[in-house]
Amino acid sequence: LIAAPALAQTQPTINWRLASSFPKSLDTIFGASDIFTKRISQLTGGKFNIRSFAAGEIVPGLQVMDAVQAGTVECGHSASYYYFGKDATFSFDCAVPFGLTSRQHTAWYDQGGGRELTRAFFKDYNIINFLGGNSGTQMGGWFRKEIKSVADLKGTKMRVAGFAGRVLERLGVVPQQLAGGDIYPALEKGTIDAAEWVGPYDDEKLGFFKVAPFYYAPGWWEASASFSFYVNLKEWEKLPKEYQAAVEVATYEAHVGMQAEYDVKNPTALARLLKNGVKLRNYPKDVMDACYKTATQVMEEEAAKNAKFKKIYEPWKRFRQDQNQWASVAEATMQNYLISAGRAAK
Amino acid sequence: LIAAPALAQTQPTINWRLASSFPKSLDTIFGASDIFTKRISQLTGGKFNIRSFAAGEIVPGLQVMDAVQAGTVECGHSASYYYFGKDATFSFDCAVPFGLTSRQHTAWYDQGGGRELTRAFFKDYNIINFLGGNSGTQMGGWFRKEIKSVADLKGTKMRVAGFAGRVLERLGVVPQQLAGGDIYPALEKGTIDAAEWVGPYDDEKLGFFKVAPFYYAPGWWEASASFSFYVNLKEWEKLPKEYQAAVEVATYEAHVGMQAEYDVKNPTALARLLKNGVKLRNYPKDVMDACYKTATQVMEEEAAKNAKFKKIYEPWKRFRQDQNQWASVAEATMQNYLISAGRAAK
Repeated sequence: LIAAPALAQTQPTINWRLASSFPKSLDTIFGASDIFTKRISQLTGGKFNIRSFAAGEIVPGLQVMDAVQAGTVECGHSASYYYFGKDATFSFDCAVPFGLTSRQHTAWYDQGGGRELTRAFFKDYNIINFLGGNSGTQMGGWFRKEIKSVADLKGTKMRVAGFAGRVLERLGVVPQQLAGGDIYPALEKGTIDAAEWVGPYDDEKLGFFKVAPFYYAPGWWEASASFSFYVNLKEWEKLPKEYQAAVEVATYEAHVGMQAEYDVKNPTALARLLKNGVKLRNYPKDVMDACYKTATQVMEEEAAKNAKFKKIYEPWKRFRQDQNQWASVAEATMQNYLISAGRAAK
Repeated sequence: LIAAPALAQTQPTINWRLASSFPKSLDTIFGASDIFTKRISQLTGGKFNIRSFAAGEIVPGLQVMDAVQAGTVECGHSASYYYFGKDATFSFDCAVPFGLTSRQHTAWYDQGGGRELTRAFFKDYNIINFLGGNSGTQMGGWFRKEIKSVADLKGTKMRVAGFAGRVLERLGVVPQQLAGGDIYPALEKGTIDAAEWVGPYDDEKLGFFKVAPFYYAPGWWEASASFSFYVNLKEWEKLPKEYQAAVEVATYEAHVGMQAEYDVKNPTALARLLKNGVKLRNYPKDVMDACYKTATQVMEEEAAKNAKFKKIYEPWKRFRQDQNQWASVAEATMQNYLISAGRAAK
């Protein structure tokens, strides 16, 4: 039903730069910014153009938030827990230990109050934040030696950062900060004993399985890791309404796309790793319990001294409790049955 | 960076009608078409307008696919398994027994080949299909009496349709077809013994708990139910590229929004149901096993006689197998731990 000729409309040509915290080699994560920018261009007839830059091209990977805050770039794609050192509250926008699964985080952000809570926090940084993908539950890392109980963690030099490092430190782990490219040689030489990265698809590319054969699950510090698009608030306010709508809606597509790509790529990568002799292990129950107890203490301590953290933590904690109770009824029961049926069918 | 004045651009005003298969009372499902149409209007400066109609307003709920196929309406929002009677192959676009979870289905459609496979099938119906929301794992229905083993299913008159009905029939259930509004009186009078609907949030509104107190999990015929937007192919091809992009991207937002809304609303509804004395039960293992075995037989039989079904079933089956193996490593291990930690913390 094509109606009367429309009014001519003039929209401005706008060129933005997006700084990503990620290298192009993390193609699943970096790819989300491609989905995002490509769609915005399509929606605006090529008039609103955002050019993506990988980590280090114009902004160092771990300074993307600062660059968007300062307006050095109009927008960015990052993982908010990178800014844990500035304020632990950033982590709720990405991952906290024993936190929300991918679906739960999305529900919290989109309909459960998370958007409002995290945006109120980001406003102080002159930023508006959007969903920007998720990895799902990550793996718990590669170990040169088997971990049979919590006692085996003592003295383990492990590449692990942020909240997880703070928790593991209390259990005797010596957390190490290393960039992705430095992990393999450190594991090979024995400078470190263990390292966490992402999951099968990304881990395989770095070859850790050759030097640290024990592959642990789950990465309890990333029950899911949610990535974010950041937009400088002043630049946001300057956009025409249609362009704001294009940004908002494109974040959903990128968000779905990243999780879907991980879900499609991880199973086949895992199968290849297993063929290469990787020894898959679950963290022993006493390790999980000690980590959960310690993580809870660390979170409660942070809430006691950090009002911004507490403001999100309290409703978030109730949300998590409600989600897991409901998950136990239908979703997890079904998933567990499908897993056991799949095993029996092999 | 606002650059030189842009060229004036003229886009046509287009008015479409969307027929939904759902009543407005199913607000979580119907709401997805509101998200979809509102966003498309915003993206196009109000020039591309799609008006939503609830089931029965212009098209009966179960004839939405036919109406889009015929071009009576330009687009629709439906659940593809409603058209199981025309061809069981439709079900892959929505739900099959012991099928994919919500995240798995989204991954399959978006990046795992599902888009291409289902679109090739829908092309014969002059339709292009898009993701349009998901409910997550549904509940397994309300029963007047407890089901303690597969023997208790014999003679049970249950409101259940499609694939699930075909499976349950072989186990002695007598499937009944009833519209939503007719279920409560039938359960109350004992004309039927059991009924499946959706999950806590939708089920609560129909009051089933007052007349059939046993609430079973999981709804193995809907490990997830994915809803779909349908667009008439000829109308699709007439759209300007920007409007096509607006439709495509808006489906992602609606898709995320429905699942998020269910995830936020179901836990509190479940808590209210439990306070009202609902008796929550898991299907006994022998029932699950008998249903799984029978469902597999029914699917294999369909594949043997229906080439279109088989073309999707074979790669879909491998996808499911890979997904559940990977889920068992990190995601489900983490989810199960969070559930048990949540229980201990209560």
